[in-house]
Amino acid sequence: MKHQDYMALAINLAKAAEGQTSPNPQVGAVLVKDGGIIGLGAHLRAGEPHAEVHAITMAGEKAKGATLYVTLEPCSHVGKTPPCSNLVIKSGIKKVFVASVDPNPLVAGAGITKMREAGIEVEVGLLAEEAIALNNVFFHYISTGLPFVTLKSATSLDGKIATVSGESKWITGEEARKDVHHFRHTQDAILVGVNTVIKDNPSLTTRLETGGKNPVRVILDSTLRTPMESEVIRDHAAETIIVTAAGAKPERAKQFEDQGIKIIKLETAKVEINEMLKKLGERGITSLFVEGGAEVHGSFLKEKAFQQVITYIAPKLIGGRNAPTAYGGEGIVRLEETVPLKITDVKQIGEDIRIIAEPI
Amino acid sequence: MKHQDYMALAINLAKAAEGQTSPNPQVGAVLVKDGGIIGLGAHLRAGEPHAEVHAITMAGEKAKGATLYVTLEPCSHVGKTPPCSNLVIKSGIKKVFVASVDPNPLVAGAGITKMREAGIEVEVGLLAEEAIALNNVFFHYISTGLPFVTLKSATSLDGKIATVSGESKWITGEEARKDVHHFRHTQDAILVGVNTVIKDNPSLTTRLETGGKNPVRVILDSTLRTPMESEVIRDHAAETIIVTAAGAKPERAKQFEDQGIKIIKLETAKVEINEMLKKLGERGITSLFVEGGAEVHGSFLKEKAFQQVITYIAPKLIGGRNAPTAYGGEGIVRLEETVPLKITDVKQIGEDIRIIAEPI
Repeated sequence: MKHQDYMALAINLAKAAEGQTSPNPQVGAVLVKDGGIIGLGAHLRAGEPHAEVHAITMAGEKAKGATLYVTLEPCSHVGKTPPCSNLVIKSGIKKVFVASVDPNPLVAGAGITKMREAGIEVEVGLLAEEAIALNNVFFHYISTGLPFVTLKSATSLDGKIATVSGESKWITGEEARKDVHHFRHTQDAILVGVNTVIKDNPSLTTRLETGGKNPVRVILDSTLRTPMESEVIRDHAAETIIVTAAGAKPERAKQFEDQGIKIIKLETAKVEINEMLKKLGERGITSLFVEGGAEVHGSFLKEKAFQQVITYIAPKLIGGRNAPTAYGGEGIVRLEETVPLKITDVKQIGEDIRIIAEPI
Repeated sequence: MKHQDYMALAINLAKAAEGQTSPNPQVGAVLVKDGGIIGLGAHLRAGEPHAEVHAITMAGEKAKGATLYVTLEPCSHVGKTPPCSNLVIKSGIKKVFVASVDPNPLVAGAGITKMREAGIEVEVGLLAEEAIALNNVFFHYISTGLPFVTLKSATSLDGKIATVSGESKWITGEEARKDVHHFRHTQDAILVGVNTVIKDNPSLTTRLETGGKNPVRVILDSTLRTPMESEVIRDHAAETIIVTAAGAKPERAKQFEDQGIKIIKLETAKVEINEMLKKLGERGITSLFVEGGAEVHGSFLKEKAFQQVITYIAPKLIGGRNAPTAYGGEGIVRLEETVPLKITDVKQIGEDIRIIAEPI
């Protein structure tokens, strides 16, 4: 095994905890001595031990003189758990490979410095790109305080989300719809506009074969038109937040609050996307999965407030100059106004195609 | 080498003549004796020798006792060239592998029967699927008398062909646009609506690094609004046909004819897609590449008059509830009305994605 293979293994360990570490990053660690693995670890859940701790615990006394491969710089501050860099030093580890430096301003290289000062040889940057991609949500949230926004849509081959009469169930196939549930599982929150709640009455929960975590449900509703008998209000299956604007009637807000719904009331006449994202970030929501409808997507596009775009495309032609598309609003006027994107993944999901893109 | 390898080679030889055999099919042939290749052939151009003839000529006297691998059943009728099955028999070939049976009612198994009656062992069906795919245009044309229709579009990730202000140059990148020229080279004719001529004034020629064949240009123009100063009228770079309807003024038609433009006047009030396809088929046009605009695509979709759909998708979000999409017209009302398609190819072309689909 080469250094790179051990780090790749550490990355895979980190991936195993996808969707369950928020607001913490996903981290994996591998401890090697005399060409053999003596410890493995992954950070599984906020509040629980970090990846390095698990790996060092597994190795026990053997950690002395070993080499550690860790996907993220060991922390140097006291958080919910003691600083890992102290433990690394104490355990007698001789050499550390770090894939990516912690973007958290409380750490930012301090862990590396501390280990080096203690005489440990530290190499930084092995498989850095993969390690950073693993935590794009965490890195974005730590550096901006805002949730990492994914805009998701599902259209026909000709870009329609419904026929001209509004029929939209279903454009994509069963496997694509299951794939969406996998993404929901990995997200802190899911957002739809009030029109989607009125029209489709979705439950917005995660329905996977083995369960899955329900994200917080966020309804964008400037005038509190969400029907009291909606699934999202009635089912109590997940925390639900309605984001509303200055004109929302307090007595209506109270009705929702009596049902256990949280109301975030912005001071603006309409819901401002950036203001909302700030409020959601303050509540510890690090990732937001935006499922539409078209006017909601149009609003996020207008503000260029997104970090990822996921589009499912079904092999169907719907046609119709008046059939609705996934991104409404006013739209851009000049092509040069588009946010430059690059496609990072294209995959056949059942009979459909999934394209993932992100701003360059 | 296995039988399959020789047939795969024959298919590759056939592919080499892509775009230059119409109205004939693409055919490849490989002649093998004592485990060595003694002849290779491909049908290169209508009126020129068939694939088997080239291969047998190359082998000369050695053909006696050899095995022939041919992608399409050798013909048994006298066309522009003498029947190949006779030549196969005369040359002393012992065994023949045929990938696909000729759909041409003038042949249809007769070549196979003739060879068998002459004592040649004939096996049919090796790599049949690949061999049929090679000639989907030819097979369609022979069995229906209509051109094989490809609907091509290029959109943003959210299905738009232009911004709300109409800006459309360019949504896809240079490599995708070059790829379109490759397809043009393989087609007998290319079709656009008169609105596209007025708006974009395209030349609709094939511009490849090594030249390329210009398809016949077909303009769909019910009322002869095509401007006399358009590129397609003025440049004489390729044969140009305007398909018009009953109300078209004869004096206007004459003006075009004086410029060498052919006029097909249908007897209906508007251009009926199926009627037009019949007329184009009668003129020996076996393939038609439809490049839009949106209303033209909408018309073909309404009539379900297409055999292939090619969609280029650019990593851009344009947005806008009023921005135009690739398939206009009325559109379907119920999702169950869609023509079921399957995706046959997905490929990254430069920064864009190309999806090819066809009716199931």
